[in-house]
Amino acid sequence: MQTYDLIQKTRRMEPLSPDEITFLVEGFTKGEIPDYMMSAWLMAVCCQGLTPEETAVLTAAMRDSGDCLDLSPVGAFTTDKHSTGGIGDKTTLLVAPIVAACGGFVPKMSGRGLGFTGGTIDKLESIPGFSTSLPIERFLEITKTVGCCVIAQSGDLTPADKKMYALRNLTATVDSIPLICASIMSKKLALGADGILLDVKYGSGAFMKTPEDAEILARLMISAGKAAGKSCRALITDMNAPLGTAVGNALEVTEVIRMLRGELRNSLTELATALAAQMLVMADMGNIVECRKKAEDAVSSGAALEKFAAMIEAQGGDAHVCETIGLLPQAACSLTVKAARRGFITAIQSEEVGLACLDLGAGRTAAQPEIDPGAGVVLHRTVGDFISAGDPLLTVYGKNQTVCETAAVRLQNAVELKDAPAAEHPMIYKIMD
Amino acid sequence: MQTYDLIQKTRRMEPLSPDEITFLVEGFTKGEIPDYMMSAWLMAVCCQGLTPEETAVLTAAMRDSGDCLDLSPVGAFTTDKHSTGGIGDKTTLLVAPIVAACGGFVPKMSGRGLGFTGGTIDKLESIPGFSTSLPIERFLEITKTVGCCVIAQSGDLTPADKKMYALRNLTATVDSIPLICASIMSKKLALGADGILLDVKYGSGAFMKTPEDAEILARLMISAGKAAGKSCRALITDMNAPLGTAVGNALEVTEVIRMLRGELRNSLTELATALAAQMLVMADMGNIVECRKKAEDAVSSGAALEKFAAMIEAQGGDAHVCETIGLLPQAACSLTVKAARRGFITAIQSEEVGLACLDLGAGRTAAQPEIDPGAGVVLHRTVGDFISAGDPLLTVYGKNQTVCETAAVRLQNAVELKDAPAAEHPMIYKIMD
Repeated sequence: MQTYDLIQKTRRMEPLSPDEITFLVEGFTKGEIPDYMMSAWLMAVCCQGLTPEETAVLTAAMRDSGDCLDLSPVGAFTTDKHSTGGIGDKTTLLVAPIVAACGGFVPKMSGRGLGFTGGTIDKLESIPGFSTSLPIERFLEITKTVGCCVIAQSGDLTPADKKMYALRNLTATVDSIPLICASIMSKKLALGADGILLDVKYGSGAFMKTPEDAEILARLMISAGKAAGKSCRALITDMNAPLGTAVGNALEVTEVIRMLRGELRNSLTELATALAAQMLVMADMGNIVECRKKAEDAVSSGAALEKFAAMIEAQGGDAHVCETIGLLPQAACSLTVKAARRGFITAIQSEEVGLACLDLGAGRTAAQPEIDPGAGVVLHRTVGDFISAGDPLLTVYGKNQTVCETAAVRLQNAVELKDAPAAEHPMIYKIMD
Repeated sequence: MQTYDLIQKTRRMEPLSPDEITFLVEGFTKGEIPDYMMSAWLMAVCCQGLTPEETAVLTAAMRDSGDCLDLSPVGAFTTDKHSTGGIGDKTTLLVAPIVAACGGFVPKMSGRGLGFTGGTIDKLESIPGFSTSLPIERFLEITKTVGCCVIAQSGDLTPADKKMYALRNLTATVDSIPLICASIMSKKLALGADGILLDVKYGSGAFMKTPEDAEILARLMISAGKAAGKSCRALITDMNAPLGTAVGNALEVTEVIRMLRGELRNSLTELATALAAQMLVMADMGNIVECRKKAEDAVSSGAALEKFAAMIEAQGGDAHVCETIGLLPQAACSLTVKAARRGFITAIQSEEVGLACLDLGAGRTAAQPEIDPGAGVVLHRTVGDFISAGDPLLTVYGKNQTVCETAAVRLQNAVELKDAPAAEHPMIYKIMD
């Protein structure tokens, strides 16, 4: 088999056989296929596409390039979820304890990664004592006893994806739906859960700008997941504004606790409940109406909060944060921005909110590897709300007055106020299986 | 300027500015842009194309990556020709002396390259004593005094093309019309002639399969040539069968001499005369009708043969070959293939003829760098001719009986015989300027 011929085939939109795709992935991972050939192939994929069958084979070959987790010690149907990501997305922290409270099992491994704001792992690490680096045996044991456990990725998972992603990132071949699908799904498959729920976001704050594109990606991911023998579903959800009201690590944990306490309810609550219900359906816990009710009851009864506290406890964290939020790290400085005029909030530019959080120290970059766990933004009003001039619009949290002021200026321009409200987007655009 | 952004732009079909294209070519030639980025860009070009303006700038940037020849010492308008190549193409050996005999100047540098059969340089080197490695001063002097001179490429011409071609050859990015145009035209421009005539071939034996594709390539090359201030024309010509009747180095020189002597006349004569006439028009030697007449007269009067002999003499070769063809190298063995049935020859598969010549030792490969100058094939009948069963169809020449027999079998299958003649293709499909 010649790599040249495989590149040529993809360029000419002639489908590759499973053996050919496996040859490419294995050869590249072992360093037998040079970067310059792989980048040509990746660009051919970006321009000419891959069939769903090719994408499924690529996904499986990437999964098989490294370690695969064996979750059988949990002894029950396990579900995992993946969100394509967005500013303020803390759904995992809500969904995992809700599903656990309903009798499901959620063993979750998250990547750390760079980004505007911390990832799930960084959010959890803002809880004093919380450990996300546990041995696999302990991870499985906590999943089995508590019902959920969230740790940082360890081991040599999908080295093909790591190497391929590094190359894509240098060669303008990141935004390709089949390559995005294979990258996400190969990792999910290697993590071994029986059911995989995908939260595919669209909108100004998401990678996919339209619901149609998000749907294409979701369809492809579901087919790759099913081809690998998994139960797989997807929600297409709105990401035109930050999710919930808090952005920043400890601030987001605070929002989660308040939501699980029943003190706060917004579109994020709706999304988390919908996601949890789908995971329960996949785990055969009833039909969607029953599972939805179970998820809502788990929140209102306090059972989900109890599971969250139990998980914190099991992972070495101080579960008292669930009662005393003040135990979470606090920023040294804060600044409240008031509405410059009266009106309806019609848009909040997520990317600007993300950049402001980065300025405030809530995110991680190559140049700034340390996260300030207390930093971030809390929105007092969000898209669709009415606000009077001079009313508090948002509060920024940072290490000093200067960073807070810089972020405040950026955020003032990120919030659009108009005389009439904008058309409402439903949070959930579509459910696919 | 970031290479990443330029790859992204081409991928998105957003045109690059001249500065951006120059940045890519210079950066890649200097080794500042790594192969894996360049191959991604090249694949993006293959899939998404370049505008004619981008192609012209790419061509000029590649020309400027190395040495450019100064032909001003010739002291007259110089013309060069380029053929996109094909089995049995010996037009340069005919055209150069014809144009010189009419008062034109043809300073020609040819690449050596690998291939089924030798290139122009290999053909000339089959003449005893003929040297194709002359100092530039001598090259210009012979051009000035004789009117034509053909030598092998020397100096550091278009290193960007060399490096880019090597990468294209490994990454399935060869067959892209803008890249082919830039590769050919950058070399032609660096060679410095005032007028450039392009012989763009189409058909089963050519790179471009249809006249339409050949026309697109020709149009792009003319525009890149004109953008660089050159006079530029193209002929779109048929390459559905080998050109002329001989394939192989000394065998092709023999055909050229016999044609210039007036002993042989076929579609190759027609092509050579048409090409020469266009070059004379570009050099302002009259209108096309006048120039065509001049070219024909140069052959019938023997003036072109005299020029060919003078060029051989000036380049150290034995000009007596023009009278005594037997002085050219002869193969040790030959074998004549007879027609298995009566009928009209409707097709001769050029590629099979090329492979047979390679078997016979007439071509150069990485594995077989030495050429047998006497080896090759002579067709006794060609496409359109009628043949009776048992009549000689072709003769193969090689170093021993075994290679001749292998080639004979291959060639028997390459010639298609039918009861009725196929529709005739005109040799010249279109003339473009």
